[in-house]
Amino acid sequence: MPEFLHVISSDEFIQRTSRFARPSPEHVSLDAALQRLAAADTISPEDLPEWARSTVDGYAVRAEDTFGASDSIPCFLEITAAVEMGTIPDAVLSPGQAAQIPTGGFLPRGADAVVMVEYTNHAGGSSIEVSRPVTVGANVLEKGEDVKSGETVVRAGRVLRAQELGLLAALGIDRVPVYRKPRVAVISTGDEIVSVGKRPRPGQIRDANSHSISALVTSSGAAPIVFDIVPDNAKMLRESLERGLELGDLVVLSGGSSVGVRDLMVDVVSSLAGVELLAHGVAIRPGKPTMLAEWKGKAIFGLPGHPVSALIVAQVFLVPFLRYLQGCNLEKGPLGQRTKAELASSIHSIIGLEEFIRVGLTKTAKGACFAHPVFGKSGMLSTMVKADGLVVVPMNVEGFARGDTVEVVGW
Amino acid sequence: MPEFLHVISSDEFIQRTSRFARPSPEHVSLDAALQRLAAADTISPEDLPEWARSTVDGYAVRAEDTFGASDSIPCFLEITAAVEMGTIPDAVLSPGQAAQIPTGGFLPRGADAVVMVEYTNHAGGSSIEVSRPVTVGANVLEKGEDVKSGETVVRAGRVLRAQELGLLAALGIDRVPVYRKPRVAVISTGDEIVSVGKRPRPGQIRDANSHSISALVTSSGAAPIVFDIVPDNAKMLRESLERGLELGDLVVLSGGSSVGVRDLMVDVVSSLAGVELLAHGVAIRPGKPTMLAEWKGKAIFGLPGHPVSALIVAQVFLVPFLRYLQGCNLEKGPLGQRTKAELASSIHSIIGLEEFIRVGLTKTAKGACFAHPVFGKSGMLSTMVKADGLVVVPMNVEGFARGDTVEVVGW
Repeated sequence: MPEFLHVISSDEFIQRTSRFARPSPEHVSLDAALQRLAAADTISPEDLPEWARSTVDGYAVRAEDTFGASDSIPCFLEITAAVEMGTIPDAVLSPGQAAQIPTGGFLPRGADAVVMVEYTNHAGGSSIEVSRPVTVGANVLEKGEDVKSGETVVRAGRVLRAQELGLLAALGIDRVPVYRKPRVAVISTGDEIVSVGKRPRPGQIRDANSHSISALVTSSGAAPIVFDIVPDNAKMLRESLERGLELGDLVVLSGGSSVGVRDLMVDVVSSLAGVELLAHGVAIRPGKPTMLAEWKGKAIFGLPGHPVSALIVAQVFLVPFLRYLQGCNLEKGPLGQRTKAELASSIHSIIGLEEFIRVGLTKTAKGACFAHPVFGKSGMLSTMVKADGLVVVPMNVEGFARGDTVEVVGW
Repeated sequence: MPEFLHVISSDEFIQRTSRFARPSPEHVSLDAALQRLAAADTISPEDLPEWARSTVDGYAVRAEDTFGASDSIPCFLEITAAVEMGTIPDAVLSPGQAAQIPTGGFLPRGADAVVMVEYTNHAGGSSIEVSRPVTVGANVLEKGEDVKSGETVVRAGRVLRAQELGLLAALGIDRVPVYRKPRVAVISTGDEIVSVGKRPRPGQIRDANSHSISALVTSSGAAPIVFDIVPDNAKMLRESLERGLELGDLVVLSGGSSVGVRDLMVDVVSSLAGVELLAHGVAIRPGKPTMLAEWKGKAIFGLPGHPVSALIVAQVFLVPFLRYLQGCNLEKGPLGQRTKAELASSIHSIIGLEEFIRVGLTKTAKGACFAHPVFGKSGMLSTMVKADGLVVVPMNVEGFARGDTVEVVGW
């Protein structure tokens, strides 16, 4: 028998998703790690650079040979070598000697500074004049100055951007620990639902949720496994659910706009041996009948069948959960960019429900930003396309007045 | 012979990238279209919904039958049918009749409104009492009310989010026009460069740019084709460049920290028959030696060899160009999120160069945000990892003082 829980707040719902463990980390190639979170610290196995390098085009010198040099009394040095990229010269620089060196060249032994070519002149034969003194280490990146062997270069939890991957490559680290991408079984249910390629018969509609939910799963960094549409039949729903739990790290069901069908979904989930129903009913609008259950450490999300409600609930709970499984902190969605805007018309809300209001954003030439509640019945799919973001009206607030400054979260 | 151009501003550089045509649009499946831009308007081929649907659980009725109904004087209706999901009942509703209907159910012919179940009571046998009147269209989504046949549902230039894909699916549109992903040949050059998997000999360093630049290409929605490292040899560089132009829609070369090698790259690019050198030298720091050329309508970007400079230049010019090729407006990068912050220490800059300063961001418990210029020589790769973003110091500004409010662009 289904265990009916009380309607809980969205914060409590988020809290109940925190019991699930992250999939085990894996080591992947740098290219596969882009935008994922480091699952562990990465320690440099070596110094960067491994040998002192010049940061300019010029001459490698012994700094003390240049002390006192000036435009009027330059010092003279003998060029005894030319550093080539990709090699270290054999010769050791002796007092009074210099070696031509390009930017990035490794310093010859004996050299401890580089004079920029701009402060030198040819002085006949293989001699140069140096018109400025340099101190030890001038224009040089010392061995280990960038990264020292044993130093942590990327901390656990860091997003691996282009720059992290570049630095890791420079250190010879070609695999990094990241959390495995969660596999998400996406199951649309409903007697009336047909796939996008089919012509609906009278009374039928096409499946929007498989596409929009799997798109959100993908853009959350996880991997959707899209199932065939399941009719409102306990046996078939249970078979798909079991298969989803087998193939996926979690299952996302959507369906059940009417009370009867919602009961069916809860009944089927509750019938799994060892399942625990964690939430059934959340004080949000849209999305009140949202369900959460655990079976053998795997999460089962039950989203409303209506595509607008399903999308909003997925943004509020599913996307943050998928990011959490990949190493992020758990927080309430939507996670999009936040923009302050002036409300162009008032919003009315119900005390006791946290409401997510669809709004469009416009900007005036002067940079003022306005949020316009999207016109149309809440069940219209076109409203989700017309909305640039959501305004969240907390549970204990009756709404916002025209002219109020609100925060719009991109979605 | 190379045609040396004057050093130009970053705005002028961006302007010169605008001459390149976008790759031709293609039609892709919904799942492949995620986060890409619509290349043309999409028109709905049908009405959504195709038939009036109930938005609540209740009874489909003829509205006029309920006029005057109240708690004290309810009206009585005869239940003659039950709408099942996925079908339309055969029977036509006559005066005095009602049909049970679930949320999302299609209205029986003859019905023009739905009474919520909450405002009804069983009245014995197959009768119900209705205690509230409904107007025509109440609790109904009319045929075509969401989207009308012939209406534009997704405009050209729109980013295809989960919600656009869901709506398109609901309308039976399973392929959408988007700009083809640009193929980008990524070529690292340099005698001293070895691939990440190799142990550098003394004087050699590992290739960071292939990884960081191809990561930026990928996260810009384009497709990198990573080439083997090319030594500083005119013949080999030309061969790789020609191959890159054959396979890619554009070529990104990086290399040439020293003046001699930079000249080699320009010489090789200039030697292509029919090539036009569009820019060679930009008034930015880092990144002054950046190059741009056109060959048969394809762009050749020449980035500095130093990984930090290459990354910054790629963020400023390459990423916006790749987005532009996929339908976005052309603008100067970096394109990351913008945050206002208080400068924690002063920044000095040179008049005549636009500088991109690496900064870390910290937030106090009270929400104040500080930008800290990243400590360390500008050539250090670790600085790009330590930086959360960049502060741009315009060409004609000498710097910013500690305490100034600056805009930090995430990168």
